[in-house]
Amino acid sequence: MDNNKRVPNVVVVGGGFGGLVAARTVAHSPVRVTLIDRKNHHTFQPLLYQVATAGLSPGEIASPIRSILRGRNVEVLLGEVQDFDLANRRVKLADAEVPYDYLIVAAGASHAYFGHEEWEPFAPGLKTIEDATEIRRRILLAFELAERRAALGEGQTQLNFVVVGGGPTGVELAGTLAEIAHHVLAHEFHAIDPKRTRIVLLEGGPRVLPAYAEDLSRSAEKQLRHLGVEVQTSTMVTGIEPSAVMIGQTRLPASVVLWAAGVAASSLGKKLKAPTDRAGRVLVNPDLSIPEHPEVFVVGDLAALKDDEGKWLPGVAPVAMQEGKAAARSIAADLKKKPRKNFHYIDKGSLATIGRSAGIAQFGKLHISGVIAWLSWLFIHIFFLIGFRNRVLVFIQWAWSYFTYERGARLITGDTNLPGWTEPKAEETEVHHQTS
Amino acid sequence: MDNNKRVPNVVVVGGGFGGLVAARTVAHSPVRVTLIDRKNHHTFQPLLYQVATAGLSPGEIASPIRSILRGRNVEVLLGEVQDFDLANRRVKLADAEVPYDYLIVAAGASHAYFGHEEWEPFAPGLKTIEDATEIRRRILLAFELAERRAALGEGQTQLNFVVVGGGPTGVELAGTLAEIAHHVLAHEFHAIDPKRTRIVLLEGGPRVLPAYAEDLSRSAEKQLRHLGVEVQTSTMVTGIEPSAVMIGQTRLPASVVLWAAGVAASSLGKKLKAPTDRAGRVLVNPDLSIPEHPEVFVVGDLAALKDDEGKWLPGVAPVAMQEGKAAARSIAADLKKKPRKNFHYIDKGSLATIGRSAGIAQFGKLHISGVIAWLSWLFIHIFFLIGFRNRVLVFIQWAWSYFTYERGARLITGDTNLPGWTEPKAEETEVHHQTS
Repeated sequence: MDNNKRVPNVVVVGGGFGGLVAARTVAHSPVRVTLIDRKNHHTFQPLLYQVATAGLSPGEIASPIRSILRGRNVEVLLGEVQDFDLANRRVKLADAEVPYDYLIVAAGASHAYFGHEEWEPFAPGLKTIEDATEIRRRILLAFELAERRAALGEGQTQLNFVVVGGGPTGVELAGTLAEIAHHVLAHEFHAIDPKRTRIVLLEGGPRVLPAYAEDLSRSAEKQLRHLGVEVQTSTMVTGIEPSAVMIGQTRLPASVVLWAAGVAASSLGKKLKAPTDRAGRVLVNPDLSIPEHPEVFVVGDLAALKDDEGKWLPGVAPVAMQEGKAAARSIAADLKKKPRKNFHYIDKGSLATIGRSAGIAQFGKLHISGVIAWLSWLFIHIFFLIGFRNRVLVFIQWAWSYFTYERGARLITGDTNLPGWTEPKAEETEVHHQTS
Repeated sequence: MDNNKRVPNVVVVGGGFGGLVAARTVAHSPVRVTLIDRKNHHTFQPLLYQVATAGLSPGEIASPIRSILRGRNVEVLLGEVQDFDLANRRVKLADAEVPYDYLIVAAGASHAYFGHEEWEPFAPGLKTIEDATEIRRRILLAFELAERRAALGEGQTQLNFVVVGGGPTGVELAGTLAEIAHHVLAHEFHAIDPKRTRIVLLEGGPRVLPAYAEDLSRSAEKQLRHLGVEVQTSTMVTGIEPSAVMIGQTRLPASVVLWAAGVAASSLGKKLKAPTDRAGRVLVNPDLSIPEHPEVFVVGDLAALKDDEGKWLPGVAPVAMQEGKAAARSIAADLKKKPRKNFHYIDKGSLATIGRSAGIAQFGKLHISGVIAWLSWLFIHIFFLIGFRNRVLVFIQWAWSYFTYERGARLITGDTNLPGWTEPKAEETEVHHQTS
């Protein structure tokens, strides 16, 4: 092999926002690019809560990575990266190794239970399509099981849905659950009244959406209450059982518990043997490379880096995308024997959706609440959704849901038993006599 | 309780075409109606092959039964019927019993392996949404694994997809698989050429689509070959192994095997203790009731009845729907103390789709092939799809796929290992040298 003519291999691990942008950008350089992901599809995470709440189908917010990168100089491989051989510059899969000259790790983050992994079966988190369909199954099944119990004359079940964590995901889930219980399903059951469902949002800190300014947090809380969500801040969950959440000595019965309280970086971060923070994020150099390995970059939720004001950059799509592009540009600079540039995040503002016609937006000093924030969120997210077809379909679904209060993907797939769903205790039950 | 005022309970088992129509029709009578299904959704079976082949999302062809029957006098219960107590007129669920005065059993059929249940893990059939996503997973995964193998320099894999059974489902699957391999995926892989995929359709009898006239069968076979399907008729499968189908002593290597060779009636048929045919279908009286139990009706794929010419009625949606309506009308007649009418099937014609622009149609003596049959099939099926929203979405998806050769739901969910996917033997492999 002629080393002078050898094309450098760039391997990108992860097909999320950071990895996709990195691969797409670096593909313009004279390199061979390989993107490895353990899923065949990119998931548009900002709309995942809509799949979990039966508003959208998985196929509408996920696209095959191969399809997104069609016609580009990127080889896409389905595979789970298990380790890195940094000395020999190889990525290790279960049954093969992929050599690299440059490596961009964009493996993201997952939900974390902070040492309480035993809570996971009773309180699923929301990071993948599979998580979303499991949450959807549990929510819809809770109503079905309550209806069956009541229709067969076995009494009424008080349905409580508890969402743990008041960040963007927790707020979206709680707001949308309230819409489902109080509007979508309101007239579809004969033996139960879905409007009696309690939606409880528990947040450990003093306010929801703590990444936003305080006035917006207060507005978000007000909007949540208006949608019918019971918001409890400064409330620490101390235990999760099959049908209940413990808050200190208080037992809150819960038909469904959803976990939105914490994320941890991918375990691949530790495999890079670079220093990490407590959440497992890799402390990267200002050019996003890792110490002692200028050929290895970490971008997106797996990277820990401070902005120009000394604040840690948040784990959001715009940061990941800008980082992915920056890492690719550093590789291009190397190949042209030009100096690399340090990464600077350009904050174009933040938006959070809360529920039907409710949201908040923060563009520097401009703070917006309510329907305008919600509409901005909606159109920006539909615009950034990958694939024109998806944008059209999601827009139709959304308009349909908005005007009809129907949700298009109310499927229970898989098992029709709810693990840990137990008959509520007597004090939680209002007995309902049925004539037959 | 005042027996003179007591409202009769009508229990319908199954939310397919027959059960839905039965429940909807009988709900107009002065009765209490309960529909029990083990799924929360009605599946529009004629489009299930589109989910299996990644063209449509599950949510686009399935609707919650509760939603379909909203506002009607029908209580919908999620539950799996396990048995019937005919003497005491009760339907038995796992944990409860539901009393009835009239019972309509519309439990349908499932795929059957004719005593070779050991083939099922290697050759899934297509009856439910879960089956469809499992088939989709296997098809997409086969391409991904072949690509990974080739990209890592481990050689080319000859991908063979084998469909067993030349009835409507087998023909649809084979025709659509050919479109995926030869068009949709043709330009998305770097290391393999999806166009080299072989699609083989095996039929035990002398011709495909044997329920149609002979000239239409011949036309269907020709259309399949034109789409790139290898059709082998009069070919009996004698064994199915993890990566191969046995035809006598010949071993046909197969990356994916799909089973479309036979259906058997629901096992609930036998629980009615009425005579059944070899496929387990209940031999019903001319009014669709069962012998000795005029209060019990069987409709749809679970019922065996001859038409006026002495031919067995086929297991298709129009038969199920007409039977469901007839059973409901017999109940209404009883309540009005009028005589029941015998069931007569009105055949409005049959249509089968084969693939892109290919299909056959038989309206009495009028036989149509090709693009007009395909378009008729398409519009009739979109028209009958339940829910206006689904009709709009499916139409958009279809138009989009037709003009762009893209498929909107190419998600691999669940496990990314292919059970039984083994490295092909040397003689099946063309070694491909990769420079790196």
